[in-house]
Amino acid sequence: MKVGIVGAGMVGSSAGYALAVMGLASSVVLVDQNHDLAVAQAEDIAHAVPFLSSTIVEAADYVGLAGASVIILAAGVSQKPGESRLALLERNAAVFKDVVGNVLAVAPDAILLIASNPVDIMTQITQRISGLPANRVIGSGTILDTARFRSLLGRHLGISPQSVHAYVLGEHGDSEVLAWSNAKVGSLSLADIAAQVGSPITEHVRATIDDGVRNAAYKIIKGKGATYYGIGAGLARIIKAIAQDQHDVLTVSCVTPEIVGVKDVALSIPRVVGAQGIETDLMPDLVSAERDGLEKSARLLKDSVESIRL
Amino acid sequence: MKVGIVGAGMVGSSAGYALAVMGLASSVVLVDQNHDLAVAQAEDIAHAVPFLSSTIVEAADYVGLAGASVIILAAGVSQKPGESRLALLERNAAVFKDVVGNVLAVAPDAILLIASNPVDIMTQITQRISGLPANRVIGSGTILDTARFRSLLGRHLGISPQSVHAYVLGEHGDSEVLAWSNAKVGSLSLADIAAQVGSPITEHVRATIDDGVRNAAYKIIKGKGATYYGIGAGLARIIKAIAQDQHDVLTVSCVTPEIVGVKDVALSIPRVVGAQGIETDLMPDLVSAERDGLEKSARLLKDSVESIRL
Amino acid sequence: MKVGIVGAGMVGSSAGYALAVMGLASSVVLVDQNHDLAVAQAEDIAHAVPFLSSTIVEAADYVGLAGASVIILAAGVSQKPGESRLALLERNAAVFKDVVGNVLAVAPDAILLIASNPVDIMTQITQRISGLPANRVIGSGTILDTARFRSLLGRHLGISPQSVHAYVLGEHGDSEVLAWSNAKVGSLSLADIAAQVGSPITEHVRATIDDGVRNAAYKIIKGKGATYYGIGAGLARIIKAIAQDQHDVLTVSCVTPEIVGVKDVALSIPRVVGAQGIETDLMPDLVSAERDGLEKSARLLKDSVESIRL
Amino acid sequence: MKVGIVGAGMVGSSAGYALAVMGLASSVVLVDQNHDLAVAQAEDIAHAVPFLSSTIVEAADYVGLAGASVIILAAGVSQKPGESRLALLERNAAVFKDVVGNVLAVAPDAILLIASNPVDIMTQITQRISGLPANRVIGSGTILDTARFRSLLGRHLGISPQSVHAYVLGEHGDSEVLAWSNAKVGSLSLADIAAQVGSPITEHVRATIDDGVRNAAYKIIKGKGATYYGIGAGLARIIKAIAQDQHDVLTVSCVTPEIVGVKDVALSIPRVVGAQGIETDLMPDLVSAERDGLEKSARLLKDSVESIRL
Repeated sequence: MKVGIVGAGMVGSSAGYALAVMGLASSVVLVDQNHDLAVAQAEDIAHAVPFLSSTIVEAADYVGLAGASVIILAAGVSQKPGESRLALLERNAAVFKDVVGNVLAVAPDAILLIASNPVDIMTQITQRISGLPANRVIGSGTILDTARFRSLLGRHLGISPQSVHAYVLGEHGDSEVLAWSNAKVGSLSLADIAAQVGSPITEHVRATIDDGVRNAAYKIIKGKGATYYGIGAGLARIIKAIAQDQHDVLTVSCVTPEIVGVKDVALSIPRVVGAQGIETDLMPDLVSAERDGLEKSARLLKDSVESIRL
Repeated sequence: MKVGIVGAGMVGSSAGYALAVMGLASSVVLVDQNHDLAVAQAEDIAHAVPFLSSTIVEAADYVGLAGASVIILAAGVSQKPGESRLALLERNAAVFKDVVGNVLAVAPDAILLIASNPVDIMTQITQRISGLPANRVIGSGTILDTARFRSLLGRHLGISPQSVHAYVLGEHGDSEVLAWSNAKVGSLSLADIAAQVGSPITEHVRATIDDGVRNAAYKIIKGKGATYYGIGAGLARIIKAIAQDQHDVLTVSCVTPEIVGVKDVALSIPRVVGAQGIETDLMPDLVSAERDGLEKSARLLKDSVESIRL
Repeated sequence: MKVGIVGAGMVGSSAGYALAVMGLASSVVLVDQNHDLAVAQAEDIAHAVPFLSSTIVEAADYVGLAGASVIILAAGVSQKPGESRLALLERNAAVFKDVVGNVLAVAPDAILLIASNPVDIMTQITQRISGLPANRVIGSGTILDTARFRSLLGRHLGISPQSVHAYVLGEHGDSEVLAWSNAKVGSLSLADIAAQVGSPITEHVRATIDDGVRNAAYKIIKGKGATYYGIGAGLARIIKAIAQDQHDVLTVSCVTPEIVGVKDVALSIPRVVGAQGIETDLMPDLVSAERDGLEKSARLLKDSVESIRL
Repeated sequence: MKVGIVGAGMVGSSAGYALAVMGLASSVVLVDQNHDLAVAQAEDIAHAVPFLSSTIVEAADYVGLAGASVIILAAGVSQKPGESRLALLERNAAVFKDVVGNVLAVAPDAILLIASNPVDIMTQITQRISGLPANRVIGSGTILDTARFRSLLGRHLGISPQSVHAYVLGEHGDSEVLAWSNAKVGSLSLADIAAQVGSPITEHVRATIDDGVRNAAYKIIKGKGATYYGIGAGLARIIKAIAQDQHDVLTVSCVTPEIVGVKDVALSIPRVVGAQGIETDLMPDLVSAERDGLEKSARLLKDSVESIRL
């Protein structure tokens, strides 16, 4: 499978590196308006390949994306001093208008995978610009937040994250909702498992895990200025589900006709991902506080996206 | 990690082949009372290795098991014409008495992994003979039945088995219990997910899946005389959880102090498996019919094991 | 990639098991005139999959092979008591006439990978029956003999087989030629490397390695009646080179226009294998004794194949 | 296996990311004098793990390196404006004096793997400071240059780099020597293979490949400021050879008693790498121009290292 990556910064290149190390794609093509950067990233990743797989890694212009099954959009501009969040969003929307047009001109059948932040809003903008069916425009959403939630719960209980089923819903950002009420370990509720292994989930434990999920990115950004390895691997994980038509349940972002009463908004809930992109949405059962939180998150995103002129 | 395999028939050798192909063990040692068979299997598997991993595969006497972290017991005798099930069990118990003694003499710290059928009874016998703590004597139990249950549910719902959480409990055999009541997909109940994806789980679907799980082995045996690839990979899966200290939840068999009112019996429930063997038991919440089924299964196993003279 | 396997005996099913464990193919389809056997093997292998990959494994009729990129031919009849080798060959040729016709009717673009013995003769027969270009009819040839040669040399020198470059040429059978004269470790000759590591390759060492390569299969057959794990993994290795378009150098069998003066004969020399099948032949430089041995092997195969009526 | 990484910049963290993605180490510990950076890198990499393996990734002080089998040294200071190369080397030597002392205090049995540049000189300094046997102080040397040489030759000939055996010797830097004279494809000389595949290696081809190997890093640095993915994967490759005791032939740097007449100097030649570190040196046969080049490279390194006060 051929994978395109538009935006050869740290997020895009970390995704390319993970794809090459895992041997997931037969070909990875990097595109960047700074072509020298794309060439340098492609060369650096290509040097990793002889040790690990037979993926071909190259830099190219947009035309090199022809035939790609999935294209990661990791482009975007940074905030200028004094610039409002809205002004930044509008500049980024303008960038995406160009990028999406260029991409679709050569790869009209590709699935678009959005990594640029704010990811939910960029996903919705991309869907609108592209006119593609919503299930082919996927944002990385809360895929990392969910992974983090499971890791922290698993560590507390002494159980593999693979056996923990818990989701982070809504915005990938401050308004996200940890769905504690329906978290399961195997098929046991959290209360049951915590009792059986003797590690009760006290208010303190809960607050610590909530903070660990919600503020993980801030802590990484404080220490190294940006996050890229985790999201790079998360993007590779979504591509694996597509490449192998796995029908996996992942919390990814996508424009959804209606969610807790809010219409036509992109955010994360568990969704089944396979070769065609998103195949089905799986709306979890929530308690009222979670439902309210998710509605608040959805409205906030909806308001943001509506304030942007495209 | 060094893995020993006692019994170089089709089950033992299929497990060795999977371990070599996956590169999971640094060394695999095959022991069989038919030493020529062990040598031939080891050579045949070793020929597969240059293409795939760097596992060293060898045949040896018991002394070659020294230093093994896990030893698969896949030995056993076959039923003679006219022989009762009980007489067969007693002959197999006698074989295991020898085998376990020989194994523990050289590898007193190994985890024993029982693959010989009837696996629950052989697990309990092995624990009794060996005097080892119960958590270090693990039977493959219903690991395959559980995998099969998830595959069939996943196929019906159009969702990856990785996202299905459902367990087969009790005996690996006719009395096993499919725990339908607490099966989850993601964190949704079966009723919810079936409604959301539009694939209701009717009585007919349920009966078909039940039959597919319960009679899978019979169908394979009818066509090819024995089952070995599935169980070989299942044993490799358990060894992966041990080798990488994964704390995974697997349905494996183990002597359990008390289960639905039956004391000191080996059967399968979800258990956390890591470097130390079984770390915790996770008793699922059951509806009364399932609970009754599990109790019946437990009593049947308990009665069988008590009828055997060691 | 979809892989078909015609002949669901131990060789075909071991190849299918390796493909599933390695996750190399997205789909594996088993066909056998004993359909119950194909179903049973497919089920048994499918039970291994949930632990390891997302390969779909199924039994089918020939029509199920439509769309396969590679089809392994592992079918064949066994020698009857008193039957001559030639009579057996003619019966097997008759079986292949049927099989190849059925296969090409549904998968005219597939690469055929021959595993049935005598593999060189069956490869030549298949090419003739099928009328396919020679580079799309590949016999497993001496792929295992070469792997074995490297393993034994590597073990003697204390060096990874991956760093040993040595080939077994000609017939997969008694007349095969170990090309000692051009064996290299890294880019060193055997004499140089043996001197540097202090492990001279004496006549005795040479004879032991020669015997170990030449008689490996006999020893396995003596102990277990047949060989299948090694060849199963070897077939998976060839398919990996095709699936990932690796342009790997492998010693496989193929009808060759001219080799050491013998025209139009199938045997093994190093060949480059990629997505199109065999891309180039690489004839090694040989000393005269090796050249004579290879010519003898080629003539013997040529005479055999010409004696068969198709 | 536990792997330590001292220096959590881009090279150290890219190595940690590759180790986690490949699941090669059970535990990766990052140490940096900027502890916040080590914490942030460890967290970012740890977020990648739930999708891929079960490696535990953590930041720690030196004491956290206890029990590590291999420790990557990727620390170092940058050139100040106007600072001479020698002054920079002395400052880096001072950093390593601290680092190596701290490392050996807690992990006296670890193999040290040097990634800091100039890698040959830092390897020799580390060996001298540490007093460890030379075979346990390994520099990444020309491992990438060699991989690059094979990739470019393979691409020119249409053959997998895995089947190309060619080495870059001497300094990882301007004086390195591409050993064209003994390059082999399979067991064929370059002249033979080029004739057989019809792609002659003209002076122009040779110059292009030489430039591609020699200046790869400069081109990457020009585009993105530094190289890290390739070297990260190269370090992971060396650790794989150690972790799995592969006895692979790799071109790594190590203090060598005598090389082309120069005594006691660290540079790269093919060496066998396994669980004990470097097991054997394999000196290739060179033509006189290559030999002269290698001697010049060795003298240059020797002079550099002797000019440094420790």
